[in-house]
Amino acid sequence: MTMLRDPSVKYSAFPQVPLSHREWPGRVTTKAPIWLSTDLRDGNQSLIDPMDAEKKTRFFDLLVKCGFKEIEVGFPASGATDFDYIQGLVRGGRIPEGVTPQVLTQSRADLIRTSFDSLEGAKTAIVHVYNAVSPAWRKIVFNMEMPEIKGIAIEGAKQLRDNAARLPGTDWRFQYSPETFSTAELDFSIECCEAVMQILQPTAENPIILNLPATVEASTPNIYADQIEYFCKNLPNRDTAIISLHTHNDRGTGVAAAELGLLAGADRVEGCLFGNGERTGNTCLVTVALNLYTQGVDPELDFSNIDEVIQTVEYCNNLPVHPRHPYGGELVYTAFSGSHQDAIKKGFAARERQNDERWEVPYLPIDPADLGRSYEAVIRVNSQSGKGGVAWVLEQDKGLKLPKKMQASFSHVVQALADETSRELGAEDIWHAFERQYLTTEAKRFQLVDWSETHSGADRIFAGKLTIDGTPRSVSGRGNGLMSSVIAALRESGGPVMDIVDYSEHAIGQGSNVQAAAYVECRTADGKSLFGCGLDTDVATASVRAILSAANGA
Amino acid sequence: MTMLRDPSVKYSAFPQVPLSHREWPGRVTTKAPIWLSTDLRDGNQSLIDPMDAEKKTRFFDLLVKCGFKEIEVGFPASGATDFDYIQGLVRGGRIPEGVTPQVLTQSRADLIRTSFDSLEGAKTAIVHVYNAVSPAWRKIVFNMEMPEIKGIAIEGAKQLRDNAARLPGTDWRFQYSPETFSTAELDFSIECCEAVMQILQPTAENPIILNLPATVEASTPNIYADQIEYFCKNLPNRDTAIISLHTHNDRGTGVAAAELGLLAGADRVEGCLFGNGERTGNTCLVTVALNLYTQGVDPELDFSNIDEVIQTVEYCNNLPVHPRHPYGGELVYTAFSGSHQDAIKKGFAARERQNDERWEVPYLPIDPADLGRSYEAVIRVNSQSGKGGVAWVLEQDKGLKLPKKMQASFSHVVQALADETSRELGAEDIWHAFERQYLTTEAKRFQLVDWSETHSGADRIFAGKLTIDGTPRSVSGRGNGLMSSVIAALRESGGPVMDIVDYSEHAIGQGSNVQAAAYVECRTADGKSLFGCGLDTDVATASVRAILSAANGA
Repeated sequence: MTMLRDPSVKYSAFPQVPLSHREWPGRVTTKAPIWLSTDLRDGNQSLIDPMDAEKKTRFFDLLVKCGFKEIEVGFPASGATDFDYIQGLVRGGRIPEGVTPQVLTQSRADLIRTSFDSLEGAKTAIVHVYNAVSPAWRKIVFNMEMPEIKGIAIEGAKQLRDNAARLPGTDWRFQYSPETFSTAELDFSIECCEAVMQILQPTAENPIILNLPATVEASTPNIYADQIEYFCKNLPNRDTAIISLHTHNDRGTGVAAAELGLLAGADRVEGCLFGNGERTGNTCLVTVALNLYTQGVDPELDFSNIDEVIQTVEYCNNLPVHPRHPYGGELVYTAFSGSHQDAIKKGFAARERQNDERWEVPYLPIDPADLGRSYEAVIRVNSQSGKGGVAWVLEQDKGLKLPKKMQASFSHVVQALADETSRELGAEDIWHAFERQYLTTEAKRFQLVDWSETHSGADRIFAGKLTIDGTPRSVSGRGNGLMSSVIAALRESGGPVMDIVDYSEHAIGQGSNVQAAAYVECRTADGKSLFGCGLDTDVATASVRAILSAANGA
Repeated sequence: MTMLRDPSVKYSAFPQVPLSHREWPGRVTTKAPIWLSTDLRDGNQSLIDPMDAEKKTRFFDLLVKCGFKEIEVGFPASGATDFDYIQGLVRGGRIPEGVTPQVLTQSRADLIRTSFDSLEGAKTAIVHVYNAVSPAWRKIVFNMEMPEIKGIAIEGAKQLRDNAARLPGTDWRFQYSPETFSTAELDFSIECCEAVMQILQPTAENPIILNLPATVEASTPNIYADQIEYFCKNLPNRDTAIISLHTHNDRGTGVAAAELGLLAGADRVEGCLFGNGERTGNTCLVTVALNLYTQGVDPELDFSNIDEVIQTVEYCNNLPVHPRHPYGGELVYTAFSGSHQDAIKKGFAARERQNDERWEVPYLPIDPADLGRSYEAVIRVNSQSGKGGVAWVLEQDKGLKLPKKMQASFSHVVQALADETSRELGAEDIWHAFERQYLTTEAKRFQLVDWSETHSGADRIFAGKLTIDGTPRSVSGRGNGLMSSVIAALRESGGPVMDIVDYSEHAIGQGSNVQAAAYVECRTADGKSLFGCGLDTDVATASVRAILSAANGA
């Protein structure tokens, strides 16, 4: 087989929705939806190795910790595994106050009864009944006409009503899904929902949840939004229903469909953490929530330790979170290109100067710190990196603020190293390269043993004990300051002839641990620039070291 | 740090676009856009380990094979690695007729000159100049006002014009990106583009490419579409420009942004295979293309051997394609839940009966065969699988069409096995379980050695040589047909007392290799159902074996 040159013989364009005044594209979402995690149901049922009870419990506890108030915990009528887990959850007192478990069931009397039984003893619970309503399912799977399909929904609603009456100890809530909503006739979905509502008599205070699945994503997300807006506008007694979205990602637009569906009037979103679920997965609730957050809306979910969330999800699902997954992937706060690195560095610097909390750092749509990610992870360095990245790593890790020209000079060293090793350099590699280039004196011409300084009129006289080319030497030099006297001492003892072009120094750390970092740029007689750096607890000694460091580079 | 309870102090809602008559939500995309792969540029620069020349060449050849006509091959002014690779590509004659290489460069005279030089000798080539135009970049990165930023664009355009004149041997085309378009003032982006167009004087026959990047995805995709529609409607001489999209996936909606941007009037899409690129990646071109395909539009790209594409991409990028990635992930054509498996099975069956090519299989938005994936991979079986999945595997792999009640009976065997082993069962596991349960006679009560049949009036008399409980026996029985005479022979030789409830038989294979498969359902005196299956080249022997198989299950 192969791809068709004319795919229209096999596939058709999704039809438009007859929506007369489309409102959703002009709207903005200003508050969090109700969230429903279906990680333990839709997510779990699509795993190669479904979770055992230990993993389910771990996942459930994570969801509670993240702030989910509604959690679909399984399909209790599917077998003993799910039933026993759910009953254990309820009877073991693992469901905190304010968290409502939800179970899914097909619309059959025996299955619905079992579903209620699994939740017996819960304070509140949602029983979620579904039946498929779209033409392909009616024709291919059930061989039924519309009235029979609607009859299944009605019968399910009656069972919900009767079982709730049978077990009055729980505050039961009801959810109905016209499954395959996205590929069904909109008016028929509404008709089925209306019939269910007539049985269950929801009110604004005690609403029904109507969940509208894109069971299989079949269109661009704007069309799903049109469907949701059409549904919301044409459903009688709209105020007695919570409209819920359940999107899948078959076309890679499950997140967009959920977001546009919210604009179109929905109140609630079902999905999974990092987009687990059947086939291509459900919409990723982490992404939808953090998308709200970066628009200034409190998502009412907490992912402030996103690495912990990822670890638990990867352990339970035995599936990876992709390195490029929004907000969570290991590469999403990296910048490899020099221009990106430079811009990010400037963004952080500008942020230190600003007077408010506004986040405006180029290439980073969210402050990684909000999610518990560290700045150090922001930038990696490879042979394509520019000077910004190298300087950034040294500043973040070691507190060194290299002068601009020294950044440029050192970045050549790093790039050569990266080219040589053909791999990405980590922060430690960069630090070691910096040490080798500027700080270590081993095997270099000039090593400092000790030094002192005396004044003679306006001049200063430097007296140093050095090791020069392996031999201990006493040297001295005169100048109008410490730096120039060191330069003079070097010149007079056979070292390079050079002038100081630039000098800077800053403290690293605070209190008793404070160190001084000194940087010099010297120019030799033939116009060559030499850069040096010295670190010491003493500011003066740091300067002396910096000059020797530059001389060692000659 | 932690997530803020009131994120509005740090992040703001993206502003609406002042679009008076929004048209894109009512439109349908009916033809493929121009595709530009930036795998070797945006993709490559964001890899932990950038590709070496061998990998780049392999990727380039893959892109050509998939049908890409425009390929961004690098950033030649970034260093010798990219420059040398690009020049090698051009001079080595690796660029086929009809394929145009593109290179990216910042808007600086020396870099633009180097970029042209790298492509010297190409038949046609696109030189792509960009400069960032949005307020954050102007303020934080460049510390420049609008006129200076526009000046950079104008200067770049002049360099394009002059370098093209310098090297007349190539048919040069020009691309300009107002970088960070999505977070820039729309009118300023248009102003910069217009200024560039005034220098380059594009025509409808020789248009400029204006590429509008969502450098960082900063809004829901409908707003990006609004931006594109606004841009298209307000750009003077729209017909002399190809409008190109370049979306990133920071909010997980990069594919949606590209799709809605096409509805809004764009002509071209830049992206990477499987969504590689800076941070969260670029839009996935495989997904955008196959989304068109499943709407009946020829994408003019060929992914008919998608596994080969994945292998090459994973090798070159050293990054995985996620198991749930649309169209390509290893799990996207699986169905683990019984109801899904049953529906898919019915969908394939219905497809065999239909008279046209229309694709309408539940839960599968595309025929996996179109992408070179096999049906066998469609369904895996674990302890949550229903009878549909098991039956499907036996039918696909072994040609066995189990009767419905036998499916249900055998699925219990498989589920017990899955529960016992706590792992997913493969097709071979299922087949072995089937063999053990129904076909093997070793260590079972009744084994067939030989048999013959005679007629006596209306009756038939079965004479069989069996091994019963390890002892060779001759048995005989009388009935109104073969089956009942075998049943009688078993009864008379101490076997179970049973009746036949159901019987079916079908051929497997064709021609000289044809085999018969017989299935029986028997009921014992105490009402228990026994299922049996027999395979043989002889249809009658298959039936005899099926009855013995059922008796062995007593």
